[in-house]
Amino acid sequence: MSSRIESSLPVQLGRMERARVVRDGEPRLRDTHITLSHGSGGKSSHALIESLILPAFRNPLLDGVADAAVFHAGQGNGRIAMTTDSYVVSPLFFPGGDIGKLAVHGTINDLAVAGARPLALSVGLILEEGLDMEILRRVIASMAEAASSAGVPVVTGDTKVVHRGKADQLFVNTTGVGIVEDSVRLGVDTIQPGDAVLVSGYIGDHGMAVMLAREALELEANIESDSAPLHTLVAALLAAAPNTRTIKDPTRGGVATTLNEIASRARVAIAIEEESVPVRQAVRGACEILGLDPLHIANEGKLVAIVPRAESEAALAALRAHPLGRDAAVVGNVQVDPAGMVLLRTGVGGSRVLDMLVGDPLPRIC
Amino acid sequence: MSSRIESSLPVQLGRMERARVVRDGEPRLRDTHITLSHGSGGKSSHALIESLILPAFRNPLLDGVADAAVFHAGQGNGRIAMTTDSYVVSPLFFPGGDIGKLAVHGTINDLAVAGARPLALSVGLILEEGLDMEILRRVIASMAEAASSAGVPVVTGDTKVVHRGKADQLFVNTTGVGIVEDSVRLGVDTIQPGDAVLVSGYIGDHGMAVMLAREALELEANIESDSAPLHTLVAALLAAAPNTRTIKDPTRGGVATTLNEIASRARVAIAIEEESVPVRQAVRGACEILGLDPLHIANEGKLVAIVPRAESEAALAALRAHPLGRDAAVVGNVQVDPAGMVLLRTGVGGSRVLDMLVGDPLPRIC
Repeated sequence: MSSRIESSLPVQLGRMERARVVRDGEPRLRDTHITLSHGSGGKSSHALIESLILPAFRNPLLDGVADAAVFHAGQGNGRIAMTTDSYVVSPLFFPGGDIGKLAVHGTINDLAVAGARPLALSVGLILEEGLDMEILRRVIASMAEAASSAGVPVVTGDTKVVHRGKADQLFVNTTGVGIVEDSVRLGVDTIQPGDAVLVSGYIGDHGMAVMLAREALELEANIESDSAPLHTLVAALLAAAPNTRTIKDPTRGGVATTLNEIASRARVAIAIEEESVPVRQAVRGACEILGLDPLHIANEGKLVAIVPRAESEAALAALRAHPLGRDAAVVGNVQVDPAGMVLLRTGVGGSRVLDMLVGDPLPRIC
Repeated sequence: MSSRIESSLPVQLGRMERARVVRDGEPRLRDTHITLSHGSGGKSSHALIESLILPAFRNPLLDGVADAAVFHAGQGNGRIAMTTDSYVVSPLFFPGGDIGKLAVHGTINDLAVAGARPLALSVGLILEEGLDMEILRRVIASMAEAASSAGVPVVTGDTKVVHRGKADQLFVNTTGVGIVEDSVRLGVDTIQPGDAVLVSGYIGDHGMAVMLAREALELEANIESDSAPLHTLVAALLAAAPNTRTIKDPTRGGVATTLNEIASRARVAIAIEEESVPVRQAVRGACEILGLDPLHIANEGKLVAIVPRAESEAALAALRAHPLGRDAAVVGNVQVDPAGMVLLRTGVGGSRVLDMLVGDPLPRIC
């Protein structure tokens, strides 16, 4: 790799790297066994990854908080983005999507928010002995349709089978590679006080749709997953607001966790106006019943963007002009203090600290 | 993608594509449910992939039998290789390796045999609730050591947790990207009658080591997995034998399945001299007791190469000069008839058809 990578364009560790944002000193991993909250995307996940996984893999090339790693391929080959996700969502089918569609969209989105043009996907399947072939057929058809619609080919794959009772029907890994044009310069280090915070539409739909699809929960509401590929929305945003600071897809842990990661990493405060955050009535209602905050619920077709104030109107207009951004809104701004924290200004004039997700109220949401 | 890709350098579908080699007409998938043999890498795997998975994803760019997909990144960006594997090996630790080392080596090897210089790896973990943190720590340390020793960085990752009883401790997906230099021209379509068939050393070690590590099997033998990264061995081979036709790593399904894939794809016959195939005495003995053929047992640190006769001596010398190829041998040659088949010439002067693996005598070997 060129020395340029090691200095101005470090290889970035994607998901894992998010672990670094643990705020209060060094992360601690007191647990002796894995719990569901280690997979939540919230505080426990961060502690696990930061204290056990990252130290093992860390090297001088690893830096950044991107959803995808971005690195040079060699002499003059441009930058390659790479991202990986395993999907263990339960149930496999839910209103608005299924594990296959979710996997394709999720991986495309991790590339997209890194500023990459998605190039190719791989698919790794782990199947449980006894799985109904029709279920597999439906999931594969859904993946193929999602990949084809998004214009991103599946180029390689792998299939493994484990004994009955050693997996839960079907797990999917999708990994994606993309190309980052030299003109793309996203990074939380460019964030400045005064920048605007945008979300591209209603939040919490995916997590709530999956939650309500579980038979154990006797709650009915008309909520569909927002699973969608965001690469064309990101392209529209970057064209309209070329100095966009950073873009994230608020999946596990929701918008609140994503904003906390950004605030911590950029050493700024982020202030959010609660009333300006788009939340569907059905999602808000279900959250109230379950004692959850929509800001902690996973999204699979939404983005959060930090944009210079001067470009925020253009950014908002560009998002709203796109079918996947019709309900976009400016929800807050970046401030100097209290650095590393996210504040939520409530309707009645008060404000409270908005933390990242703690525990895992919604396991296996993706 | 350029039209050049679609003609002379098609995107290749790696593992999945192997399904196409099913010989006797169109593959048939009569099963209504997944069985362990669908994960064997042998005939059932091929039928599943060819009849259910490939038709869904197939597009004009998909072709070839490489272990990695190879495609252009865009204008003048060279070719990118991509490969994915999920690892579900049981037990997690076995003589000579563990699931983490295996995953790193396996993915590096799929890139290497496609003629690619490995560039970066991703790691996707699926953890079972209740997993002992020390087990995870050991696996991660092993992956990091393997990646570091091979000089291929892990650049991104993902961690998911499922409920107790919904996975078997720990599954790993590793996906790799690499760069294929323009000078590399591997492809089964270049194979010609008279070419030599080489293997890089003793076969069957990995599969037997894992098999014997299972407590249920009361067989003891001193067999260690051959898990190793083959990229430098491939580089040495290509330097010595620049017209090498194709290189494969005979993992699931063993050397026999790999040779059948090559013979079918290249529409040639391959004749193997049984006595020239390097098999350790302990592996041969365990195979005899279990009724298995060493040629069907998985390897994780060996390669099969088809080389022009004129370069076979140089190829053999280059392999033997490398620590991972000390026991390399020429084991057979390519013939015109019977096209698509592999013949095994036995010591007593007879010969029999060597088929690909049927069923799965060794589930969860990788």
